[in-house]
Amino acid sequence: MLPVILVHGGAGDIMDSRVPAKIAGVKAAVKAGYAAFEKGGTVVDAVEAAVRIMEDDPAFNAGYGSVVNLEGEVEMDASIMIGSNLSAGAVTVVQDIANAISLARLVMEKTPHVLLAAHGAKKFAIDQGIPILPPGSLVTDTALEALENYKKYGTQLTEIAAVKNKGEVGTVGAVAVDAEGHVAAATSTGGITGKMVGRSSDTSVLGSGSYADDQFGAVSTTGHGETIMKFCVAHTIIKAMENGKSADQATIDTINAMTAKLNNTAGAITVSKTGEIGIAFSSKRMAWAYRQGNEVHYGIERGQHEKEPAE
Amino acid sequence: MLPVILVHGGAGDIMDSRVPAKIAGVKAAVKAGYAAFEKGGTVVDAVEAAVRIMEDDPAFNAGYGSVVNLEGEVEMDASIMIGSNLSAGAVTVVQDIANAISLARLVMEKTPHVLLAAHGAKKFAIDQGIPILPPGSLVTDTALEALENYKKYGTQLTEIAAVKNKGEVGTVGAVAVDAEGHVAAATSTGGITGKMVGRSSDTSVLGSGSYADDQFGAVSTTGHGETIMKFCVAHTIIKAMENGKSADQATIDTINAMTAKLNNTAGAITVSKTGEIGIAFSSKRMAWAYRQGNEVHYGIERGQHEKEPAE
Repeated sequence: MLPVILVHGGAGDIMDSRVPAKIAGVKAAVKAGYAAFEKGGTVVDAVEAAVRIMEDDPAFNAGYGSVVNLEGEVEMDASIMIGSNLSAGAVTVVQDIANAISLARLVMEKTPHVLLAAHGAKKFAIDQGIPILPPGSLVTDTALEALENYKKYGTQLTEIAAVKNKGEVGTVGAVAVDAEGHVAAATSTGGITGKMVGRSSDTSVLGSGSYADDQFGAVSTTGHGETIMKFCVAHTIIKAMENGKSADQATIDTINAMTAKLNNTAGAITVSKTGEIGIAFSSKRMAWAYRQGNEVHYGIERGQHEKEPAE
Repeated sequence: MLPVILVHGGAGDIMDSRVPAKIAGVKAAVKAGYAAFEKGGTVVDAVEAAVRIMEDDPAFNAGYGSVVNLEGEVEMDASIMIGSNLSAGAVTVVQDIANAISLARLVMEKTPHVLLAAHGAKKFAIDQGIPILPPGSLVTDTALEALENYKKYGTQLTEIAAVKNKGEVGTVGAVAVDAEGHVAAATSTGGITGKMVGRSSDTSVLGSGSYADDQFGAVSTTGHGETIMKFCVAHTIIKAMENGKSADQATIDTINAMTAKLNNTAGAITVSKTGEIGIAFSSKRMAWAYRQGNEVHYGIERGQHEKEPAE
């Protein structure tokens, strides 16, 4: 079986002007994830590498370029999970570190816990020698402008507010399967513009933002976090695969069922243990890309599926 | 249909000397939950009232009497969920408030969010006029003694450590169904003795600690939090009911499957929308009780099921 790395750059009402940067970014993430495989890395190395690229890219709402809370601060969530033994690590509401996904991985590898929050996550980062950035280092002008627009136009976290916020929604995530059928998932986000201080999202929650189980596959989600948590989107997709659905059908059906029941949008990417791909979103757009063999596939519009040779 | 209120007082290696207080406590919780129904309250009122009783009772690891982290501090998690529309609220790593479950309910009712963490949860509590207790108010001598034992004997969060910690594990939770088949779930915990600062548990995670959906039923879980999160125990039980299992069989099968796969113990309580009861635990003991009609049922040992007339 050929290994697969599949990424998303966030579901949302992405403005036309941001489409090229999102597509370039998801392709770069796939390249980094695949390079990790080629260097002999595991599925965890692949998903972490892919997510780090998007965290560092201000075109995405994670790491540098994250949206800001009501106080103008970046507070990030991330999770990572391995399908072989259900090992997992996550952080929530963490500040002033470049790569929340790598801290989540350290929680998995260096602690008896799954999830560390806020001051605890930062304390752990310091103990692990992760560089702590000066406050405000991750805040971009775009994120501050989105907050101003939110305060001016958005009275609540509605789709209208999201549009006024220049589409500044969109978590990043990656799923991977290796030649032996081992899977992993990783997801990272800055959350949603104008969120309350300390708001924690689906992205740090196993079964909502990320899930991986070698018996079935791996999932990473994006979209309206509160809605994704109420529906346990990642775990629902896995359970649909357990009930016999393909990765593709399980992903489409779950996103549609969530949107029908709770009237909010989301997206998800899925790989099965056999390398099947599932990609679905109920938002206007979601940037995604994957590499399998020597081809890179990508898209951002509904129904769009481009192909090109890998570099 | 008769309404049901069903509670647990935590799965674990509960010492013999603590059994009477646990049983008295779960009965008191059921009484408070049922009284909420009798006063015309909703399922949410019932589960909140039941959990508050156990938070206030030092016989349980939630609210006053919570276990402490490595720094000797109480940091609490709680979640509440309504089955009719999947509304939910939760807090994680919150300090210095008496009833985390009531703060979780306020998150559900007064914010656009589901989960607030740490400083954000405390800030919200202050904004809502919840009394902030002097630091250390929730810390009992028993909790500090358990921490000393943990530091002396426990090198990691093993079952041996739990025994040395005098069985100081055990979240509290409640599920309820009303005469119309509406369900709700609520769960609250102090976590696990000697946890790292900022460690967040399954109890604040929808799909792990709590889940409620009027299409199927409601679940509250207890036990080794990291393991429960990896397995999404509450959501797995709900999905087993969706696949046709009874509340009882879904609960038993899920707890057994989790324990078989991940080699840690847990417990869960479930009510279906039709008032079926599910109670299971793979730990040595779990205190539980429920009231249906004029009978109160309770137990704490494997296979124990007592019945008495309601007061």
